[in-house]
Amino acid sequence: MSEAPPLPTKGGEPRKPASQRIPGIALPFVGDRAKKMLDIVEKFVEEECIPSDLVWQAQLGTGDERWDGHPSILEDLKKKAKSLGIWNMFLPKNHYSNLSEYDPTNSAGAFTNLEYGLMCELLGRARTASEACNCAAPDTGNMEVIARYGTADQKKKWLTPLLAGQIRSGFLMTEPDKASSDGSNISLNIRKEGNELVLNGSKWWSSGAGDDRCKIYIVMGRDNDADDSVDRYKRQSMVLVPSDAKGLTVHRMLSVYGYDDAPHGHGHITFKDVRVPASNILLGHGRGNEIMQGRLGPGRIHHAMRSIGAAEVALEWMIARLNDERKVPFGKPLREHGVLIDWVARSRLEIDAAKLVVLNASVKIDQGDAKGALVEIAESKILTPNMALTVIDRAVQAHGAMGVCQDTPLASMWAHLRTLRIADGPDEVHLNQLGRRENRARAQECIDRIQMQKQKAAELMKQYGVQEKQLGGSKVAGFAAQSYLQSKL
Amino acid sequence: MSEAPPLPTKGGEPRKPASQRIPGIALPFVGDRAKKMLDIVEKFVEEECIPSDLVWQAQLGTGDERWDGHPSILEDLKKKAKSLGIWNMFLPKNHYSNLSEYDPTNSAGAFTNLEYGLMCELLGRARTASEACNCAAPDTGNMEVIARYGTADQKKKWLTPLLAGQIRSGFLMTEPDKASSDGSNISLNIRKEGNELVLNGSKWWSSGAGDDRCKIYIVMGRDNDADDSVDRYKRQSMVLVPSDAKGLTVHRMLSVYGYDDAPHGHGHITFKDVRVPASNILLGHGRGNEIMQGRLGPGRIHHAMRSIGAAEVALEWMIARLNDERKVPFGKPLREHGVLIDWVARSRLEIDAAKLVVLNASVKIDQGDAKGALVEIAESKILTPNMALTVIDRAVQAHGAMGVCQDTPLASMWAHLRTLRIADGPDEVHLNQLGRRENRARAQECIDRIQMQKQKAAELMKQYGVQEKQLGGSKVAGFAAQSYLQSKL
Amino acid sequence: MSEAPPLPTKGGEPRKPASQRIPGIALPFVGDRAKKMLDIVEKFVEEECIPSDLVWQAQLGTGDERWDGHPSILEDLKKKAKSLGIWNMFLPKNHYSNLSEYDPTNSAGAFTNLEYGLMCELLGRARTASEACNCAAPDTGNMEVIARYGTADQKKKWLTPLLAGQIRSGFLMTEPDKASSDGSNISLNIRKEGNELVLNGSKWWSSGAGDDRCKIYIVMGRDNDADDSVDRYKRQSMVLVPSDAKGLTVHRMLSVYGYDDAPHGHGHITFKDVRVPASNILLGHGRGNEIMQGRLGPGRIHHAMRSIGAAEVALEWMIARLNDERKVPFGKPLREHGVLIDWVARSRLEIDAAKLVVLNASVKIDQGDAKGALVEIAESKILTPNMALTVIDRAVQAHGAMGVCQDTPLASMWAHLRTLRIADGPDEVHLNQLGRRENRARAQECIDRIQMQKQKAAELMKQYGVQEKQLGGSKVAGFAAQSYLQSKL
Amino acid sequence: MSEAPPLPTKGGEPRKPASQRIPGIALPFVGDRAKKMLDIVEKFVEEECIPSDLVWQAQLGTGDERWDGHPSILEDLKKKAKSLGIWNMFLPKNHYSNLSEYDPTNSAGAFTNLEYGLMCELLGRARTASEACNCAAPDTGNMEVIARYGTADQKKKWLTPLLAGQIRSGFLMTEPDKASSDGSNISLNIRKEGNELVLNGSKWWSSGAGDDRCKIYIVMGRDNDADDSVDRYKRQSMVLVPSDAKGLTVHRMLSVYGYDDAPHGHGHITFKDVRVPASNILLGHGRGNEIMQGRLGPGRIHHAMRSIGAAEVALEWMIARLNDERKVPFGKPLREHGVLIDWVARSRLEIDAAKLVVLNASVKIDQGDAKGALVEIAESKILTPNMALTVIDRAVQAHGAMGVCQDTPLASMWAHLRTLRIADGPDEVHLNQLGRRENRARAQECIDRIQMQKQKAAELMKQYGVQEKQLGGSKVAGFAAQSYLQSKL
Repeated sequence: MSEAPPLPTKGGEPRKPASQRIPGIALPFVGDRAKKMLDIVEKFVEEECIPSDLVWQAQLGTGDERWDGHPSILEDLKKKAKSLGIWNMFLPKNHYSNLSEYDPTNSAGAFTNLEYGLMCELLGRARTASEACNCAAPDTGNMEVIARYGTADQKKKWLTPLLAGQIRSGFLMTEPDKASSDGSNISLNIRKEGNELVLNGSKWWSSGAGDDRCKIYIVMGRDNDADDSVDRYKRQSMVLVPSDAKGLTVHRMLSVYGYDDAPHGHGHITFKDVRVPASNILLGHGRGNEIMQGRLGPGRIHHAMRSIGAAEVALEWMIARLNDERKVPFGKPLREHGVLIDWVARSRLEIDAAKLVVLNASVKIDQGDAKGALVEIAESKILTPNMALTVIDRAVQAHGAMGVCQDTPLASMWAHLRTLRIADGPDEVHLNQLGRRENRARAQECIDRIQMQKQKAAELMKQYGVQEKQLGGSKVAGFAAQSYLQSKL
Repeated sequence: MSEAPPLPTKGGEPRKPASQRIPGIALPFVGDRAKKMLDIVEKFVEEECIPSDLVWQAQLGTGDERWDGHPSILEDLKKKAKSLGIWNMFLPKNHYSNLSEYDPTNSAGAFTNLEYGLMCELLGRARTASEACNCAAPDTGNMEVIARYGTADQKKKWLTPLLAGQIRSGFLMTEPDKASSDGSNISLNIRKEGNELVLNGSKWWSSGAGDDRCKIYIVMGRDNDADDSVDRYKRQSMVLVPSDAKGLTVHRMLSVYGYDDAPHGHGHITFKDVRVPASNILLGHGRGNEIMQGRLGPGRIHHAMRSIGAAEVALEWMIARLNDERKVPFGKPLREHGVLIDWVARSRLEIDAAKLVVLNASVKIDQGDAKGALVEIAESKILTPNMALTVIDRAVQAHGAMGVCQDTPLASMWAHLRTLRIADGPDEVHLNQLGRRENRARAQECIDRIQMQKQKAAELMKQYGVQEKQLGGSKVAGFAAQSYLQSKL
Repeated sequence: MSEAPPLPTKGGEPRKPASQRIPGIALPFVGDRAKKMLDIVEKFVEEECIPSDLVWQAQLGTGDERWDGHPSILEDLKKKAKSLGIWNMFLPKNHYSNLSEYDPTNSAGAFTNLEYGLMCELLGRARTASEACNCAAPDTGNMEVIARYGTADQKKKWLTPLLAGQIRSGFLMTEPDKASSDGSNISLNIRKEGNELVLNGSKWWSSGAGDDRCKIYIVMGRDNDADDSVDRYKRQSMVLVPSDAKGLTVHRMLSVYGYDDAPHGHGHITFKDVRVPASNILLGHGRGNEIMQGRLGPGRIHHAMRSIGAAEVALEWMIARLNDERKVPFGKPLREHGVLIDWVARSRLEIDAAKLVVLNASVKIDQGDAKGALVEIAESKILTPNMALTVIDRAVQAHGAMGVCQDTPLASMWAHLRTLRIADGPDEVHLNQLGRRENRARAQECIDRIQMQKQKAAELMKQYGVQEKQLGGSKVAGFAAQSYLQSKL
Repeated sequence: MSEAPPLPTKGGEPRKPASQRIPGIALPFVGDRAKKMLDIVEKFVEEECIPSDLVWQAQLGTGDERWDGHPSILEDLKKKAKSLGIWNMFLPKNHYSNLSEYDPTNSAGAFTNLEYGLMCELLGRARTASEACNCAAPDTGNMEVIARYGTADQKKKWLTPLLAGQIRSGFLMTEPDKASSDGSNISLNIRKEGNELVLNGSKWWSSGAGDDRCKIYIVMGRDNDADDSVDRYKRQSMVLVPSDAKGLTVHRMLSVYGYDDAPHGHGHITFKDVRVPASNILLGHGRGNEIMQGRLGPGRIHHAMRSIGAAEVALEWMIARLNDERKVPFGKPLREHGVLIDWVARSRLEIDAAKLVVLNASVKIDQGDAKGALVEIAESKILTPNMALTVIDRAVQAHGAMGVCQDTPLASMWAHLRTLRIADGPDEVHLNQLGRRENRARAQECIDRIQMQKQKAAELMKQYGVQEKQLGGSKVAGFAAQSYLQSKL
């Protein structure tokens, strides 16, 4: 029936397992245990999670009832993941003291950021995969915060069930009507009254707030303790607030493009005299931003790697489409249309480049810390979502109308990745900071070097007895090379 | 006099030496000897070569006489380079047998492509640097070809003086009026007559043809030996032709955006019954493309790293400009104009990404060979010049009219890098090959996996007893999930 | 409370009415009646429709019940529009005979494509506006088709209630699993049996199929009458099919980036032995593509102008945001962040350019017909959605997280405009056709002229007694200008 | 010999004359006299000027002697142009009093900016054309300034020979080491001493300074008359300075990429106590910027139209190349390589869009003045060079190595158009001003309208008795629509 020539299979072989697809330059940084785990994760994602995504969607249904409960297949996936030993890989157990007290199954990994990043790439291929392995945001970041800064009580109460995958959590940072990209603008009020902290204000984009299992929020607020004389970035505190606290109301869910992300959801929440014990403070009053900085760096890397996984999936759908024998516009299969093959090439190139940027950032974190890798992390944060959006949009376009609807994962992936250009600071803020940083660090150095080189050139001119002959033939009087070269800059 | 605020120097420190600026992920691949040499090369380039560039230009002058002789300062730089031991670093001596016979100074390096690539980045910062270290194209590629495929006689006659920097060479490949991006289109005729080879045809873009010291050409042609029954890519041969051969005429030089590149030049050359001994053939009749493939891969990496060096220089000029206290349009120094700082950030990011792509390709070559690294080399070849042109063009724009003229290296760098989007195959050819390759290698795999996942999902649907409930509420009859999921693709 | 400087209001005045914002170059083409109507439409859209959009959304609700019925506010808007005389402006009544028989209110306009296009720009600003004025797709195109090609019976039955806004209609063209961008691929089967036509096959993206009021479909299919010897584009027919025909099933609705567009919807429909009277054929067997061509041209212009209206709205939201005194990241209001002001400028420029392209295409149609304006229409079709998507995406980004959710019209506008890069042929098909057309029409002309100019130059060279002196000084033998200039091309 | 299929000539016809290629929307603005002249200009450019470009180049030669004299063929072209009546078309004679005193041949046109703009498009196709018709910059702007603001003596002395094409002129504005994009930064000192003005300082980018025939400069400087209390933009004066004035030295010529533009040249000039009669002031002390503003607007339009002409030429060369039967890489003529046809389409689209933007700006100037058309002129100034550079760069790339050298006009056109992104203010300054202007003019309006619409929506909500039902099903408490809608913005 089709006029398409047969599939071009020359050179086609089964894909090598993930452990063998690591870019050569990153290989020295991946241990054998991580390689083994990568292949287990890959098999789990491809053969269990991606097929389950569709079942999850079907179990969820279509109406308002989607907000009640959650699809059972996910619990089954979690069991499988645990049994495969791919559980809590995000947590570098050696970084935390007494972790085994709270992690009876001893599941936490001891992976580097680069190793775990490679796993994130695979998890980013399926909707259900991260949660199935208890590696989903915002839980991972929250668990890290509690493991690192929490008291023994806080850990026992919240870290244990989180590590076991029994409950989920929220991270409440962004506020409506504020330029939250500047952390000093946060205004939810935290005041101490006796043995209690009292919270008033509102938050939005509280992801996961729709989930029945979401039991605990980490809430960032403006601490009354700190008056305006304190450094702008030392006025914020983080507090643990149970999601069923009195005075706390989830008013509505926010959509991402047309997706409401039920039952997870992105909540708009108000706090009216919400009271928690004073001991629910994390690390200490005014130390919110300090916690924040440690939390964000590696998190950005993990998000970036998941985005790369999504981009790879999009490229695969595009390739499958280009070779669909039913699609033969104007007598040629799609793969013979030059622009589309160009897209495949550009996508391959852009994915590979972004991956190397993120892996290099991971190495920098692993060899020092997130603070020392600010430039590399910023580059990952800026580059990756933009790359992934481009690749996915090409795949959408290659699919025509099918690409924008529910029949592929593409439209949903695009919409959700679009938020990564905003979440955790819009591109423009990161570009501005990156640019200012580079400018500040190098202005004097660049000026000095160019100046030195001109100076040296002027000396050589004299030494060689030459004038800087200028263009213009008989028309010009010549230009005093020395004066030019000796001029400042 | 200026209203500009003082330079922002916070965080500003002297630049660390090159060996300490290697991206973390590449560090395991750089040996101590290479690190040491990197720092020597850097010092030589910054303190000797860049200042000499201006003197070289001044010695050259402005009129037609620029084609006669060449600036003496270059010979002095060569002497210094030799004395510093930074000479012939391009040549991995352990790859070639008996090399020391032809390299009495034993100068050839034993560096990996990654290590030498990092040196190329530094050499790419100055016009005079590559030649000063005897690492300039097309000599490096030519020396590699002769070292690898030449006979003892050919090596003695040509390799020895080339390694000593006494003569230079040309590589004559491209032809006018041909689509030379497809090597099978080459038409300069080579026929055997007795003990001689007779060449007829024309070549252009023969770079270096203007240089008095250019004594030998490697010429690619269509070999009469091979008739049309032979594979299209096995009809070409490479022949060594002295530049003073009878019948060989350099008709004119070609310009690059107004630059004639005297005295080096890019020649348009005709061959009329040019005769050379039959022994001047390289490797054998019909093996031209075979030689070609080995020559191009690493060469592309070196070009790419030099481009990255040029981009770094452009970024440094831009930063210096942004902090020039004499430039205060509309009451704010240029660094306070938001778009310009954005350019600094994007440039930093794009340079770093391209560098990682090239370094990863180098690792792939070093761990196997150029053939196994086709994808990675193509990515480097496509990405790097485009990145560098973008960065340089921003720097030009930031300099205003100064940027397009002779007062900075920017305009010249742009024009010459522009040719890299064409030389050695235009971007479009490489993108097309990269895209086809990816498509061919993965079509079956992608289709099969997506198919398997749909199949698995259909089974799970049954297992979980769910229908794929469809959007549309009471309006729709529902959609047979099974039939959809079981459909091919 | 805010640190923002007061709003910059210098030069700020109330916006002039639409009739006074027409680009100067288009003014000669807009009559007084159209100008008057533009201002009425604008007032209606701004003061009635946009506020009603939110009410419409609220009346619709959030669950599956949204598919039942439709918000009552729209009927009220329709009444207002009729009373204002802004009803059926799309229909150039003078083009159709006996139209008043079917249009008792004589509401149809007699506007040019340019005039109506300007109205579409305004209608494109609100979700409810086009339908409120009975100017919504696909009804407008369908009414045109029936008015132009329908029999008296067909008109009485369907055109009358459509013009009155009592029913709505669908246009069923695209098919799943086909490359529908090439009309010859359509495969829904139409066969004649006695006095009936029998339809079998499936369609998707049947917009409006969810609406209770959608009573009639125009269905394009492969006509059994025409065998494979007939020209590929003369095998298709269009048939009128009532939406309640037996054998016709709406299986599901398709989403657009998460939006299901209830209650309108985009249906996936199957035809199983659907029977209609043979008289339901439009124009004649095998003439489907003929109808198609007439339908699409002006329709593309109207879509383009609505896109421009959407882009203007997005720019306005962006400007409002930039001056929101609550948004002061890093101590400066958003309008002081250089990149954002750059976005305002680029958006202004890109909107204006696209508008001129569409208006010029309208003039070309108005002065001849759609066929004579193929190039200009294709330019409008390609340029406008891409422009609008860019402008809207900037506005989303400027709003941060607010931009992707339901709190502005931006995310929804983006998602729906994204389909315009696909609907009615993807960009790539239109670019390819535009490029081939230009190439075909001009290849000979361009070659001939360049050839003539070289020939003329060669003669002048002789006449002036000059040689084409070549670059290279003493190094070159010179280049025979004559031979070069006389060479072909 | 070629494997290329024959040229696709279907639809190919001789190009219609220029008067018949005017975009439909611009036709009402072009009079019959202008149409007739357009066709004469076109024939002259295509058949005389373009062939003469090559002869001009050949007459010029290659060495330093190119700076002496100028090619004789240009004087012959000027004679032909005069005899054809296409001379001084730029000057709208009705705008100036007593013009005929200084223009004995009565050659000055009475064309609108739109009409003359269309002629500029044609002149922009050849290097020699503008000068051949005495319509070359900077003479045209200079003549306009003298005609408008000059005294009778100034006119007699300079305007008469300029209008006759006997001498040429310079416009000295930009200064080295200043951010000249901000006119208030100009620092060349003008002080009055008795009956004389004394000038000290330096200028660069003084185009035409190399030409033997360049006799008069208009020099902008900082007037000593005005102290710092005067408005920043009222401290500058313009003065007529003969090019042979004592104390004035042309030190060197500046290159544009590698082009030195001999014999015209771009001079770097110093003034050391240069004295001219006090009567050489133009209009009056402190009125330099006033003259400037009037000069720049229409000039930008003319430059833009010439750029469009250059882009059209580039597209034609690209089309010719795509159909060159000798270029058949990988077995397909270039026109069959999908990406290249895509470039043709995009180029056609982008040229057409830019042309409409410029023509619309011309209409706006013609119907009012340049001040009232600031937005439209800025759009033309920003859009056109960027468009032309893109189109030309594609044509370069399609030509491969041939594109960057002297064998096509492309490389030179690119380099010279590149300066238009800088000259007369860099893109970034114009974008910034355009953005600020739009923001300032519309901030209040946009805020007010969106506010009004929210307010109206809140009222309608009440009226219809609906709550803004929010996403979240049973999970949410609902969101007070009223409070949201009534919130500011």
